[in-house]
Amino acid sequence: MGKKALVLLSGGLDSGTALYYAKSIGFNEIYAISFLYGQKHTKELNMAKKLADNFGIKEHKIVNLDMSLWGGSSLTDNSLDIPDYEDNNKIPNTYVPARNMVFLSIAASYAESREIYDIFIGVSEVDYSGYVDCRQTFITAMENAINQGTVCAVSHNNPIKIHAPFINMKKSDEIKLGISLGIDYSNTWSCYKGTEKPCGRCDSCVLRKKAFKEAGFSDPLLDK
Amino acid sequence: MGKKALVLLSGGLDSGTALYYAKSIGFNEIYAISFLYGQKHTKELNMAKKLADNFGIKEHKIVNLDMSLWGGSSLTDNSLDIPDYEDNNKIPNTYVPARNMVFLSIAASYAESREIYDIFIGVSEVDYSGYVDCRQTFITAMENAINQGTVCAVSHNNPIKIHAPFINMKKSDEIKLGISLGIDYSNTWSCYKGTEKPCGRCDSCVLRKKAFKEAGFSDPLLDK
Repeated sequence: MGKKALVLLSGGLDSGTALYYAKSIGFNEIYAISFLYGQKHTKELNMAKKLADNFGIKEHKIVNLDMSLWGGSSLTDNSLDIPDYEDNNKIPNTYVPARNMVFLSIAASYAESREIYDIFIGVSEVDYSGYVDCRQTFITAMENAINQGTVCAVSHNNPIKIHAPFINMKKSDEIKLGISLGIDYSNTWSCYKGTEKPCGRCDSCVLRKKAFKEAGFSDPLLDK
Repeated sequence: MGKKALVLLSGGLDSGTALYYAKSIGFNEIYAISFLYGQKHTKELNMAKKLADNFGIKEHKIVNLDMSLWGGSSLTDNSLDIPDYEDNNKIPNTYVPARNMVFLSIAASYAESREIYDIFIGVSEVDYSGYVDCRQTFITAMENAINQGTVCAVSHNNPIKIHAPFINMKKSDEIKLGISLGIDYSNTWSCYKGTEKPCGRCDSCVLRKKAFKEAGFSDPLLDK
């Protein structure tokens, strides 16, 4: 019988690496969940589909949830521009209110329906944009909520574990790990914008560029 | 300035009462959120719209999220029949995996975008179906997760409170309270089925009938 895991697969660098990592530590029946959440472009989602196809996923669900109904982030609200990276401690307006909580909750629902007890998410609190829902403190609180709010955990003693394997890892080390596991990073998209090539200036591009440089690799997405 | 609250409004008896209760304790700018989550009928949702219209809501969001993509509940999965009430301690298959967690997460996202710090949910762990996500333990864990995963709470010291005012209240007392606050219960729908009149046999109907009887009122929905 397969050892099941569910991976939150946005199609970005982190979630792609999480997919390969989950397999490398022994999960051999891997499910993925992606979200069309009202973001301004679907380039990342197209990469998620490509990653899932190449990888050999057991089941890939794409969930439609329009968070632009309330907005509050430059990623979901057309009245807000996506800013260039700024080297300060402020959380940029690309923060989407409670996004990882929403994604993890829906993932927990899907996981419970499939008797999956291991969920992987590629968040990190190193080389990140300060998003509060990428911190271990949040992941721990969320895991606890899941295990108080699902029948599998409360009644059947099958708690759900949230794995955040890169939470304390530098992004450059994550890239080295991903490459050693065989991921093709040209099938991942990090830029907040939907332009043909990554803009190179948004938070997500700047963090990715810096990490590839530190890791000593060129970014295959840019040579595509 | 208004004192804002967000009410999770399914259109059932509990959420309708929560709406009137929130107003009665001083919230005068009330938002509501309802879900089209892949349930088999929309009678409850139509009641939510009617309740919101009659009440004078500041803003009512109806969120489309198809949880029937993975099912796992007789409310969302066409291959499972909705059972009649059974007097035992088993959780019926009407339990929808992690539903209240999903709803509360999305509510938290919407609330944060509107600078709302009080969310109301009509759950109770008295006269209920044993759903684990209706228990205070879960609500407390979820509130903690919200306050570790939102910028308003972590960075700006504006935590979000989840109010579950009926958590320890008998449903008959809740009905007495609702009637004293002026709610018209003919605008609420509890039955799990979408038939013209409530079936009278499902868990939700049986709990509602018992509660109206105990409260000493007739159910106006049945005389409609």
